[in-house]
Amino acid sequence: MELSARNQLKGTVKNVSTDNIMAEVTVDFGGQEVVSVITKSSFERLGIKAGQPVTVIIKATDVMLAR
Amino acid sequence: MELSARNQLKGTVKNVSTDNIMAEVTVDFGGQEVVSVITKSSFERLGIKAGQPVTVIIKATDVMLAR
Amino acid sequence: MELSARNQLKGTVKNVSTDNIMAEVTVDFGGQEVVSVITKSSFERLGIKAGQPVTVIIKATDVMLAR
Amino acid sequence: MELSARNQLKGTVKNVSTDNIMAEVTVDFGGQEVVSVITKSSFERLGIKAGQPVTVIIKATDVMLAR
Amino acid sequence: MELSARNQLKGTVKNVSTDNIMAEVTVDFGGQEVVSVITKSSFERLGIKAGQPVTVIIKATDVMLAR
Amino acid sequence: MELSARNQLKGTVKNVSTDNIMAEVTVDFGGQEVVSVITKSSFERLGIKAGQPVTVIIKATDVMLAR
Repeated sequence: MELSARNQLKGTVKNVSTDNIMAEVTVDFGGQEVVSVITKSSFERLGIKAGQPVTVIIKATDVMLAR
Repeated sequence: MELSARNQLKGTVKNVSTDNIMAEVTVDFGGQEVVSVITKSSFERLGIKAGQPVTVIIKATDVMLAR
Repeated sequence: MELSARNQLKGTVKNVSTDNIMAEVTVDFGGQEVVSVITKSSFERLGIKAGQPVTVIIKATDVMLAR
Repeated sequence: MELSARNQLKGTVKNVSTDNIMAEVTVDFGGQEVVSVITKSSFERLGIKAGQPVTVIIKATDVMLAR
Repeated sequence: MELSARNQLKGTVKNVSTDNIMAEVTVDFGGQEVVSVITKSSFERLGIKAGQPVTVIIKATDVMLAR
Repeated sequence: MELSARNQLKGTVKNVSTDNIMAEVTVDFGGQEVVSVITKSSFERLGIKAGQPVTVIIKATDVMLAR
């Protein structure tokens, strides 16, 4: 499956935390971190665990800039 | 100003392209790229140019994961 | 690649329209339509054309409800 | 009230689940499912229950494509 | 139609600008402004014009905070 | 830090509520309210409390319109 989302960054899962409905996953990119909040059911379906390689995906219209 | 958005990554502007309303900005992070689509007026207000340092900002609920 | 995004609906591309930066793609699902706005470069990279099968992907936190 | 959001699909509530702050609602569209995550207070305000008709609303810029 | 989106603010259209695919609409709220970027086809379907009353709608998960 | 997000509205925190992962913050703008859902860790990092001034930030592509 090829995806339209422009931003696909490869990193490593650093930390995971779950709630009844939501899950928070911290991904490390060689020193910088990205945090993702997804549903707990997607988190469980993907079988995400600390230490695993993972791809972070972000639609370009959701990316802001600052100077 | 401190921002709630969890994801604030420092990179360098690699490429810019504008339309009447929208602007597309490619940011380099030591080899991986992130593309941002913002309004042309925000692009002009920030004065973004290729070669500049820039911070990419993404709300955690807009970040998906893939394995 | 398996994706965290919960909503992955299979449809058929009905109509495409492009600008300098953005592309608008209408997808048919057996009578109901979904419109997607992505970057023109992603549109070209995927090689999307009318009549093709395509998967629409939407993060659950971007879905609203109305009664 | 007429809404700018392009994507308004009519379905039936299949499943609901709530947390302190968030609610997850699964909507059926003749075999395909869409999951929505909204605030629990919006969920309660709309009075959403399994078996009810509901309209799913998605802004076009939040829709990705995959092939 | 009652909508799950929590944020529904009443204002007045101050300025409009269109492209092939996108439209940018500036809405005034008694001194503060909100800018909306929607598809041109939604803009035309709603018949939005400067001076009109309009409701701005934002999903709570798309709202960031700063101090 | 100057931000690309077009919509930056100054208000006052009216109510806060937290979960394990998420936080819900209601902000008052002279009578109209905006609700924000952010991660609990961002909420704690910003030290948000009822009665404080706060800036609400929304990317223009996340703003819908209705008539």
